[in-house]
Amino acid sequence: MSERKLLFFEDGNKEMRGLLGGKGAGLAEMTRIGLPVPQGFTITTAACREYYERDVLSGELLEELDAAMARLEQFTGKRFGDPANPLLVSVRSGAQFSMPGMMDTILNLGMNDGVAEGIGKLTTERFALDCYRRFIEKYGEIVLRISHHDFADMLEHIKDKERVRHDHELSVEGLRNLTDDYLRAVSKATGKPFPSKPREQLMGAVSAVFESWQNERAKIYRKLHNIPDNLGTAVNIQSMVFGNLGPTSGTGVCFTRNPSTGEKKLFGEFLENAQGEDVVSGTRTPEPVDTLAELVPDAYANLQQVADLLEHHYRDMQDIEFTVERGSLYLLQTRSGKRSAAAAIRIAMDMLSEGTITQAESLIRVSPEQIEKMLHRGIDYSQPLKELTTGLPASPGAASGAIVFDNEAALKLTKTGSKVILVRPETSPEDIQGIIVSEGILTSRGGMTSHAAVVARGMGKPCVCGADSLHINLSKRTVTVGGLTLAEGDALSIDGGSGKVFAGVVPLIEPALNEEFWRLLTLADGAARLYVRANADNPADASLARRFGAKGIGLCRTEHMFMEPGRLPTVQALIMADHDEDRERALEKLLPVQREDFYGILKAMDGYPVTIRLLDPPLHEFLPSREELQEQSAAATTQGERVRAERALRKVDSLHETNPMLGHRGCRLGITSPRIYEMQVEAMAEATFDLLQQGLDPRPEIMIPLIGHHRELIVMRRLVESTWRKVELRREVKYGVPIGTMIELPRACLTAADIAKHADFFSFGTNDLTQTTFGYSRDDAEAKFLPAYIAHDILEHNPFAVLDTEGVGRLMRLALADGREAKPSLKVGICGEHGGEPSSIAFCSELALNYVSCSPFRVPVARFAAGRAKYLQGEQTDK
Amino acid sequence: MSERKLLFFEDGNKEMRGLLGGKGAGLAEMTRIGLPVPQGFTITTAACREYYERDVLSGELLEELDAAMARLEQFTGKRFGDPANPLLVSVRSGAQFSMPGMMDTILNLGMNDGVAEGIGKLTTERFALDCYRRFIEKYGEIVLRISHHDFADMLEHIKDKERVRHDHELSVEGLRNLTDDYLRAVSKATGKPFPSKPREQLMGAVSAVFESWQNERAKIYRKLHNIPDNLGTAVNIQSMVFGNLGPTSGTGVCFTRNPSTGEKKLFGEFLENAQGEDVVSGTRTPEPVDTLAELVPDAYANLQQVADLLEHHYRDMQDIEFTVERGSLYLLQTRSGKRSAAAAIRIAMDMLSEGTITQAESLIRVSPEQIEKMLHRGIDYSQPLKELTTGLPASPGAASGAIVFDNEAALKLTKTGSKVILVRPETSPEDIQGIIVSEGILTSRGGMTSHAAVVARGMGKPCVCGADSLHINLSKRTVTVGGLTLAEGDALSIDGGSGKVFAGVVPLIEPALNEEFWRLLTLADGAARLYVRANADNPADASLARRFGAKGIGLCRTEHMFMEPGRLPTVQALIMADHDEDRERALEKLLPVQREDFYGILKAMDGYPVTIRLLDPPLHEFLPSREELQEQSAAATTQGERVRAERALRKVDSLHETNPMLGHRGCRLGITSPRIYEMQVEAMAEATFDLLQQGLDPRPEIMIPLIGHHRELIVMRRLVESTWRKVELRREVKYGVPIGTMIELPRACLTAADIAKHADFFSFGTNDLTQTTFGYSRDDAEAKFLPAYIAHDILEHNPFAVLDTEGVGRLMRLALADGREAKPSLKVGICGEHGGEPSSIAFCSELALNYVSCSPFRVPVARFAAGRAKYLQGEQTDK
Repeated sequence: MSERKLLFFEDGNKEMRGLLGGKGAGLAEMTRIGLPVPQGFTITTAACREYYERDVLSGELLEELDAAMARLEQFTGKRFGDPANPLLVSVRSGAQFSMPGMMDTILNLGMNDGVAEGIGKLTTERFALDCYRRFIEKYGEIVLRISHHDFADMLEHIKDKERVRHDHELSVEGLRNLTDDYLRAVSKATGKPFPSKPREQLMGAVSAVFESWQNERAKIYRKLHNIPDNLGTAVNIQSMVFGNLGPTSGTGVCFTRNPSTGEKKLFGEFLENAQGEDVVSGTRTPEPVDTLAELVPDAYANLQQVADLLEHHYRDMQDIEFTVERGSLYLLQTRSGKRSAAAAIRIAMDMLSEGTITQAESLIRVSPEQIEKMLHRGIDYSQPLKELTTGLPASPGAASGAIVFDNEAALKLTKTGSKVILVRPETSPEDIQGIIVSEGILTSRGGMTSHAAVVARGMGKPCVCGADSLHINLSKRTVTVGGLTLAEGDALSIDGGSGKVFAGVVPLIEPALNEEFWRLLTLADGAARLYVRANADNPADASLARRFGAKGIGLCRTEHMFMEPGRLPTVQALIMADHDEDRERALEKLLPVQREDFYGILKAMDGYPVTIRLLDPPLHEFLPSREELQEQSAAATTQGERVRAERALRKVDSLHETNPMLGHRGCRLGITSPRIYEMQVEAMAEATFDLLQQGLDPRPEIMIPLIGHHRELIVMRRLVESTWRKVELRREVKYGVPIGTMIELPRACLTAADIAKHADFFSFGTNDLTQTTFGYSRDDAEAKFLPAYIAHDILEHNPFAVLDTEGVGRLMRLALADGREAKPSLKVGICGEHGGEPSSIAFCSELALNYVSCSPFRVPVARFAAGRAKYLQGEQTDK
Repeated sequence: MSERKLLFFEDGNKEMRGLLGGKGAGLAEMTRIGLPVPQGFTITTAACREYYERDVLSGELLEELDAAMARLEQFTGKRFGDPANPLLVSVRSGAQFSMPGMMDTILNLGMNDGVAEGIGKLTTERFALDCYRRFIEKYGEIVLRISHHDFADMLEHIKDKERVRHDHELSVEGLRNLTDDYLRAVSKATGKPFPSKPREQLMGAVSAVFESWQNERAKIYRKLHNIPDNLGTAVNIQSMVFGNLGPTSGTGVCFTRNPSTGEKKLFGEFLENAQGEDVVSGTRTPEPVDTLAELVPDAYANLQQVADLLEHHYRDMQDIEFTVERGSLYLLQTRSGKRSAAAAIRIAMDMLSEGTITQAESLIRVSPEQIEKMLHRGIDYSQPLKELTTGLPASPGAASGAIVFDNEAALKLTKTGSKVILVRPETSPEDIQGIIVSEGILTSRGGMTSHAAVVARGMGKPCVCGADSLHINLSKRTVTVGGLTLAEGDALSIDGGSGKVFAGVVPLIEPALNEEFWRLLTLADGAARLYVRANADNPADASLARRFGAKGIGLCRTEHMFMEPGRLPTVQALIMADHDEDRERALEKLLPVQREDFYGILKAMDGYPVTIRLLDPPLHEFLPSREELQEQSAAATTQGERVRAERALRKVDSLHETNPMLGHRGCRLGITSPRIYEMQVEAMAEATFDLLQQGLDPRPEIMIPLIGHHRELIVMRRLVESTWRKVELRREVKYGVPIGTMIELPRACLTAADIAKHADFFSFGTNDLTQTTFGYSRDDAEAKFLPAYIAHDILEHNPFAVLDTEGVGRLMRLALADGREAKPSLKVGICGEHGGEPSSIAFCSELALNYVSCSPFRVPVARFAAGRAKYLQGEQTDK
């Protein structure tokens, strides 16, 4: 059965968004439930799809359209093109999902010289001419594709001639001349006269709406919002009502609740004696919707009633367009209202309390992005700001501070109590100290998952990346943008949520995590099939994560502990050691500091599991760069200095790798240099037993990185167990520790059955798993070809941000099935960055992982996404 | 049912190798078929395994042993330890697979003072004493673990005293004194007298054999030959026969055919009036086995008969040990004889012709390694050689030439007609010109799959890698090894089959590929389920591959064409181009040379498919290194030179990648820089149509590298098709070209169903697939941790040499199943290095791939391995 091409409002309903578009479905539903809607009909998306197949309006459609217009004439008692009693209609596009990129509205269609004259007689000549010239202008622009500037020039010319400033000051004579100018201009541009026949006008407008579905802006919008390209749009044809027929007429827009705060009170704007266009054109300033109560009290009461009715009917806050014509209220649109993050949460919680929506709906009504927005300070955009440039919004939140270009300056300035923003072409692990003390990070290179972006998101610090109009001169210590040069120490502000960069210190708004926010998260926890842990490497982060509701640490990296400034020399001595004694001396120094690290984290997470990963990165990451050592060697003033630098250089060379990502790291290090792992395990055991002695409940879990073969795990497990036992004997205590593995290599997934036999838990490291499954070096891919891949639709998303369910996900599915078959008690989580990304969390929930782990600042988002996961099927209509 | 601990020879047979060991099964079988074997029994491997569980000989075993000895006494009519009629036995180890690392033989067990005296009376006193002192010496060494040197010192001392040079010149008095010295020395070393009770001697010897299964040499041997550690060894106890009882006695070893040439004629050695030990100790030189025909004609005739019988019985050439005691022939061992590669092939083909073995057996009797050996020149080890050091045997064959250290010297010297050996710390793609003109390659760093090794194997050039005792001084242009310093131009020789390095030019032996060789390969082709293509990048290699029987080219890489000295500047200009015109100019220059490349290869392979891979490596591989450009910039004498060098430097920096293996290469380049691929496709089309015009039958197939997502292939396929069509139109021809893809990323395997829809063929690139599946950078892994992994048994093989069937193989299985389900006509091959490795070929055959592709020199090996694949189940007993 072919789908219907045309439906009168009374024949549709709100479930028919796909066929009628959002606007059409809303008009149909309001008509159906008896609300005052001007009569009309919808040309369906099926007709649009047909149009795209044939590239022309079909004869069948035209027949239906003629019949519909005849019926509309019958309903209204007016006639299309009849000067004595003219039917005018509005033509509006309306796709399934609201799309600002498309053609919006043509009002007063059906106008021509004769009709204008007839309307002049029914109202005023000025009104009729003004409507007419506006119709020509809009129709000319949208349907006949004549430049807006051509019309604007003619308007300016007449205004100059009459020496007036505003459109409405023009004389009737002037309007008439302008109308004539417009008609001539159209005729000149198109080679034929302006279409005067209403039927021809209508066909042109319908075609134009269909065409607008394919314009560039619309395509980009769809791509951005993941709206399929083949849906097509509907067209709504509706008899005009006039808000500009005197003091008891007007037009307005209102929300059934406050879209900023969520307060339950009508909120919107009203313009007396006006058509919708007047609001848009900005010639007059609308009043708050309350003014209608004074002007036309009955209409306001009516509106209030309608608002309540629609909210209950749709079980959501509505955004309503209406017109009052001579005291009567007409509704032109209703739809779910867009709202701020705070309002979304309050409305969801209020409506749940009111009994309007279910718990599932309350979770679906709020988006994970809105939860995230709640957590970050924002810039107060109501204040005057000096915007410098815009980069990528890499890590949300806003920050102000003095510009610093390196670690040294960052440390120096922050010691004096200043706040700083680290500004770098790009960052590397060497910049970690500077990043730690900075309020935010700004780079001129690198993408959404560059080092700076990843680290900043991990720390919950604002970050703007890849602001490529910045010219950073590290030797002069200046940054130049748009002609302005700022020096180190000058103030700068960034908004990591929008990517904007501002000069000076800007006013910030603190996040307010209110009762509704926590109530929503608790709801989510109850609905979730998996729970949330955090990735944290120190007690402060662990405590923060716990406050945000993390039920454990899923990934405690130990390399950051090694990178700390005070320890790095010892770590380097360890790596440089040629003799066992030198190595043991370095290990002896590191043991107590590692023990303190673990003590602090385990204490902060008392009663919750803490998964500690043994050292993962290749050793050369802890040594200075080749260039740095060459400089040291060249600058050496004593023989001893030179020898040391050259020895280090030889070590760096011997550790050099062509592809360090695939090199000598993770358990490969543990196997070739077991003493480091032994020291780490010893430190963990000591910390655990210290806490036990104090009556606390530490729950460490030891995780081996980069397992690719079960025999690696056998060897590592033996090493961990024997070291643990050694400390147990020394401390005269017995306390089992779970030992598990990262699953971050394809081979680990493919041989999960063997690996599971020797593992108490799996933790998917999807960052590395994505790198190896795709064969993408993240750093290189994001800089070189991923942007082109996403632009050319080869990939839908950056797979480092959104889990690739087809490739990486298939490996995870395999590993889970095989792993759990081999060991039903296997606990499985994910600790890659995807563990904090809502759609990836939904996938993990579907796979029935036990937990996801993400950075502390993403814990609320992850809890929320986990709770929402099972209701996601219903969400599609909510877009 | 527990396995039997002890079996008399007459109760066993040749199928019982697992329980009786190879030697025991041979003795049993010969006894069973009525051949003259001295009586005895075998203590089984089951007893050995029991020994390892209990660490002691069980009471049960000892009971059985006593009973068996009693039975043996009854059979022989002699008594263990009876001076008047003593039973002496030999004790020999014998595992399922022959293992030179283990204890071999103790003869004359049962000797003590009394027995020696008794034997002295039966024979001569000298004979008895000599047997006795040798028994003490062997038993002392093997069972009592007394140093061989202690015995040797005493022997030297007596010889000095008696002023004689050879053992057999000692007086009876001297032998008696020596025997006393030996007994005293044993007593002193062990704290107790030498065991004089035969039963005690026997228990000691049996335990020692069991222990020898676990000695270091045996363990290493098992590891090297993939023999499981838990098999255990058997022990054979056999009554002595004496070959040293006069002129009609003797001992010998013979092969039923010539083990060097395969000629059908008894071949071996015989020593008159001697025991086996006399042959081993080297005091006397044995004669050819034919001499037995003159000495004891009946025994020789008997031996000839036995040899024929055994060969027919075992259906293989046999290696026989025998003793003649006073004219009677006794057999002490029979086993399949080891043979040279040439002999293996000739024997297999002869026996097939004789009707002795089946076609399947003829394929199993020859190993792929033997086929390979046939193809390479070897060093004539019969000549005097000066060995310098030994490295890794990276690519077989021998070569001599003048030492060169770089491309420049290599080109210069070869232009004058000299042969050269390229000596480098390690090689990189930059050295390719030098490699091409060299006879062989020698490196001091890098493993079996380092660049040098891979390239050399690909070219069939000898290569020795990782010879780390070489000290190469590139600035002085010398190489020093073991105190000897050689300069550039000095002669050097390498044997890539053994890893040995020699000073000077050494004599070489050319390979002779005889009729039997080709007959065997033709047999293999008939049995194979898949066929063999070659990887070749130029017409010469293609022709060679064709001569070796390749049925097409499975991988024609186009990057080597770009690397050629004459073209590199144009390729660099292409990469450096900032403007379209510069780029197009470079492409225009490259088009005709690429067309010629393709023309030549397609012509050489006329009638066979040629799979041409579009450019794969990252562009920076074609530019000079950063260091080189920095030097150029520093050395620049004009402003222009400096600007050019610095511009190139900026380009190199902008193309730099952290992990180039996972970077901007393969189809990623094709997508971001489509013009290079277009040029290549155009050149292919032109070459194809030129050949068509000449009436030839070119069969190009275009292969897209590094596909990870089916949408990449859609885009690339569109590009190839439209370019091809363009040339078709221009040339007014219509000729379809298959378009397929490398499958070399895990994600390609995981989404093979989608990819197959757009591919005419798959070719597994298992080199890269191994890198990404394991997360191993080949260069780094082989240098840093793979050797340790293999040494510690974490991995059985280097996965770059032998396909990892569990991980990589599982991905291949997935890809094949999904790909063929989506497109049943999909043609699938493999073009990684594994395509030339026999066990990997067997796996590919099991997976039902259509073909394997390998370097031209491996084509015969691959054809052979492919034909042999389906018979491999039977091979295990052949080890």
